Order: sequence, then C-alpha cells, then structure tokens
Amino acid sequence: MPTRIGKYTLQLDKAPGILGFASVAGKKEKEGPLGAFFDVSHTDNTLGDVSWEKAESQLQTEAVQTALKKAALEGKDVDYILAGDLLNQCISSTFGLRSLGIPFLGQYGACSTMAQTLGLASLFVETGIARRAVAVTSSHFCSAERQFRFPLEYGGQRTPTAQWTATAAGSVVVGAHGRGEVKINAVTFGRIADLGIKDANNMGAAMAPAAAQTLHDYLTDTGASPSDYDLILTGDLGAVGCELMDEILEKDGIDIREIHNDCGLMIYERQAQDVHAGGSGCGCSAAVLCSIILRQLSSGELKKVLFIGTGALMSTTSSQQGESIPGIAHLVFLESQAK
Amino acid sequence: MPTRIGKYTLQLDKAPGILGFASVAGKKEKEGPLGAFFDVSHTDNTLGDVSWEKAESQLQTEAVQTALKKAALEGKDVDYILAGDLLNQCISSTFGLRSLGIPFLGQYGACSTMAQTLGLASLFVETGIARRAVAVTSSHFCSAERQFRFPLEYGGQRTPTAQWTATAAGSVVVGAHGRGEVKINAVTFGRIADLGIKDANNMGAAMAPAAAQTLHDYLTDTGASPSDYDLILTGDLGAVGCELMDEILEKDGIDIREIHNDCGLMIYERQAQDVHAGGSGCGCSAAVLCSIILRQLSSGELKKVLFIGTGALMSTTSSQQGESIPGIAHLVFLESQAK
Repeated sequence: MPTRIGKYTLQLDKAPGILGFASVAGKKEKEGPLGAFFDVSHTDNTLGDVSWEKAESQLQTEAVQTALKKAALEGKDVDYILAGDLLNQCISSTFGLRSLGIPFLGQYGACSTMAQTLGLASLFVETGIARRAVAVTSSHFCSAERQFRFPLEYGGQRTPTAQWTATAAGSVVVGAHGRGEVKINAVTFGRIADLGIKDANNMGAAMAPAAAQTLHDYLTDTGASPSDYDLILTGDLGAVGCELMDEILEKDGIDIREIHNDCGLMIYERQAQDVHAGGSGCGCSAAVLCSIILRQLSSGELKKVLFIGTGALMSTTSSQQGESIPGIAHLVFLESQAK
Repeated sequence: MPTRIGKYTLQLDKAPGILGFASVAGKKEKEGPLGAFFDVSHTDNTLGDVSWEKAESQLQTEAVQTALKKAALEGKDVDYILAGDLLNQCISSTFGLRSLGIPFLGQYGACSTMAQTLGLASLFVETGIARRAVAVTSSHFCSAERQFRFPLEYGGQRTPTAQWTATAAGSVVVGAHGRGEVKINAVTFGRIADLGIKDANNMGAAMAPAAAQTLHDYLTDTGASPSDYDLILTGDLGAVGCELMDEILEKDGIDIREIHNDCGLMIYERQAQDVHAGGSGCGCSAAVLCSIILRQLSSGELKKVLFIGTGALMSTTSSQQGESIPGIAHLVFLESQAK
C-alpha cells in the first residue's frame, strides 16, 4: 500500500520497477542530440501509412511492442495499458493499441500524459491492481499541427515562444519491486493551475505555474530539497516556460536552476533545428524519458530523477471562445537501482 | 488490496462505499421518464452561459458540487478527481473542475467514461491511493452535435439507428467501506473490441461487441450467472446495440434479456421524444446511474447491479479516414447495503 506523505504525495513503499522501456522517433528527432538513444526511428514521417494520424498510431504500437520485447514479455503478460495522446478523442492510442487485447484505460493529460500514465501504472503495481502495467503516449508534428494550428501546406510563421511538437512515442513497462534497474519511489498528481495566460503560442508559460506548484507540493510533502536529486526534468516547458518556472520557485526560496532540465530543450538543437522555444507534445517527454534518461538511470549515471510531465489543458474551441489555458503537472520520482 | 479473480476482474475485498452522488440534466432529459430523479435540472440548455461548451463545463461543476454537498464534504476532503467527456481535449472537465483545487486525472473512455472513472475511484479507495475520490462525466447535445456531426442550424435528418446525446452530467463520491448505502464489489476494465463497423450513426452496434465481451469476461472470471443480479445496466447501447449485445451473448449460452436495461433506453420516451434508437453520451449513463439507479440501490429496491459503461473510441478524423469504430466497455458491480 502506498503511504500518503503530506497532502499530495504518495510514497511507494514497495517501489515498483521498470521492466522495459522504449522510444520511437521521427526524422527530425533522430537528427537531434538524442538521436543515438532512440530504439526505433523513421526517416519517413508517414511511416509508410496513408495519413499522419495513422502514422502516429504506429508510433504507439512500435513503442509498446519494443518495450515489451526489451522486458521479454508479451501483451498477455500485462494487466492494463494506460495510454493517451493529443489527438481529438485520443485516436492515436485507440487505433495504435486496439489489436493488443490488453484492458485499456484512456488517459488525457495533454503533454503531461507520460507522467500521468507512468504514475498510474506504478500505483497499479504498488497496490496489486496490476501485476504489470504499460504506460505509453505519442505525438506527431503533422497531426498536431493540422489539428491545433494550420494546414501544413500553409507554412505559417511561428512565434519565438512557439514550441515544436515532436514526432515520437515512449512506453514503459512497470512490474514488481526489485525487477529492473530503475524503481519508482513516489508519485504526486497535480492540481489544475490557471494564471490566465491565453497565448496558444506560449504554452510553456501557461504550464510553468502548474509545474512549479506540483514540485513545490512534492518538496513540502516530503521535506526533500532540490539538491537531493541529480535532475529535475520537466516535459515540456521549453525555454520560456523553464525560465518562468525557475523564477516562480525562486520567489518561494527554491532554487532548481543547477539541476533543472526540460525534455523540450533536450530533444532538438534549438538554433540549428529552428524549433524556437523547444520541443513539445506528449511524445517529446515520453521519448526523452524512454531514451537517454532511463538509460542513464539504468546504468547508474543518473541516481535520482524527478520527472514532471506538464500539460496545457486547452482545445482550439476553448481558445477560440476566449478561454485561458489551464495547466497541469504530474510528478514521478525515479531512482536507479544500479550498484 | 483487491483480489484478482480470473483474468480480468478485481474483487474489492474492502468494498468502498458511495458517499454521495448527483445528477444534472437539461430540458429534454428533465421532460423524460426520469425527470423526477435528477438533483438539478435546467430549462435553458446554455445554462445562462455564452456557449454550449461552457454550459457543459457548468454541468460538471454542478454535479460535483451537489454530490459533495450530499456527502457533507468539501473539495479539500477529496484526494483525486477522475473526469472526462466527449469534447476535444476533454475541455468540459478541465474548465468545469479547474477551480476545485483537487488533484485532477483526465480520463478518456468516450461514453464508457462514467464506468471508467467510477471503477478507478473505487480502486483508489480500496487500495489506499485515495481516502476519497470523485468520479464525474458529462455530455451536451449541442456541443457534441456540432463537434461530431453538423452545425445545429443545419437541422440534418437523423437515421433510425442514431442516438441522441444527452445534456447531462453525473458524479459519484467514493469513500471508505461501510459508509454510504451502496458499495462497490468488483471492477472489470475492458479490452478494445472492433468488429469493423464503420457507421457513425450506429454507435450502439459498434459498442455491443465490447459490452458483450466485458460481461462475458466478468461472468467467466467470477463464475456468477446473470440471475445473480437484479439488473445488468449498459450505457449507452440504445435499441439496436442492446438487441445485438443480447444476441451475441445468447450464442454463448448467456441469456440476459430479462434483466438487461440500458441507460440510453431509460432516459427518454423514445417515440414521444423522437430520439430514434435512444440516448447516448457520457452524461447519459452518468445521469441515469446517479439518479434512479443509485437511489434504488440506496433504498434497497435494487440489490445487485452490474453497471457496464460502453464507449465508441472514434473521432471525426478516424471516420473520415475510413477507419472502423473500436468499442470498449468497463464494468462495475454495485450492491445495496440497505437492510
């Protein structure tokens, strides 16, 4: 049973382990600084399929199949799959995973979905709801761009604060304590934070208050300090959101600058790859987590990581109706078991 | 800790209780056969707001606030809220619940969302993840119609198999065992089923195989027979889907006709209210469950109910791209504690 610490944090006393993980990336992501760490990559962003939406579904299929394979497991060994994505009605997940025959729980946390699904999968195993559970999410630049912004053919200009939706997916298989090289020690699910930001080209700023709030909750609940961790990894605030999060926390006397990095800043060479404020999309944090981060945790190069998925809970309709952009952030504490 | 029975079913040994529940309904729903059972109803489907989407958010706010009030609780007494809806990026939930300050986990199960959120809330309490958790979902005829089908002003003809999206919401507060008049005994989360049906005006048929599969799994896992229950309540297959589900099960030697009812068939007078195959939408099963069903379980008029939420996991994009409509169904076993 998990132990509730403080108001918002669950400490996982059995600390489930990560049995397998995998990342799948598109062409631009493969060409970025993390290119060597992805399990699967594609030079054709349609993945040979007839639409970008179907291609995105394939990203999820491949991420789950690869993660299961690396864990030496099959679909029948898994009790639940927790999945979500950015597309309307989460169709990337449905169509990517429908043939697996695993009980399916669709999740929607916008770009926080990897942390939400991983947190839930961990709690499922911790509590005996599942023996093994899979978390997965994806995004695709082309399917997101045409759903949320403009037709690709339009070639609209992007503002300096805009982020680039990653074409990528990541998946984690969670199982019993003691298995795998990485364990999950704690989960803090976040509350919605909304400071009234309405600029859909500045999602990082909209999500930063939620990220700061969830980290603040976690540190208050546990009595930990940022220096207890090697890395506080947000995903995906980008350059603008990161600076804002650091500033918000600084006002509360919390300095995370030395150990704060962001999946949106890691996945691309910002200048050379012309991605403005950095990467974004559920698949960005999923693919960064499930490539370099979990590899470095497995090897012991990283010891303790707070992974904070951040989501902007808006739609084109809500923005067109003049609504602000509520943010949310979920935190998962990962620790290396490498000796 | 829950006990896994068979392959797919979790028996809740502590059997969490329902502390409060509430339903909110629109004008047409209030005029239907369950009108007297709704806690809150509206004669103006905009709820006095400027858009149907904002009105739908209000439905969720009111459902949660009323359920909490009936449980003599406040938002701060609740550890998690599990919520979802049909709108793109689940904005009804986000905007309806953002001011509550409760850790928020967005769920997407299409019209199965009430069973998914209630099942998860029950497991959260059973396992100690939460002391109390809230489940809520909604739908709105106008916001759904213009997102999925046609502009309202167009006044398009509806096919005989089409269902009418309910303007309604329902919410349940789940807490510790022994509290409340209704307990949750078991949960079976479903697998995606897709028999290749592509007619978006016949969702009931698309969801029926999933409903049959989940019920079949539950009966196999537990060794129970349909006659052990007062009611097997699907939501929302409508007239066509119900008949199909009964036929599928009949071929496996399972006869549920005597005790099978469907939220989509209960919420309207089908002929008089001109709703063709019946009601649908997350809010339909939520409002039926959280009105007459939980009242009759509370009073002991109903003893044992299998509530099976059914969802069609499609989007306009997937249908336009020629995809079939995958279905899903989640089951929650509810039992009266009335003496």
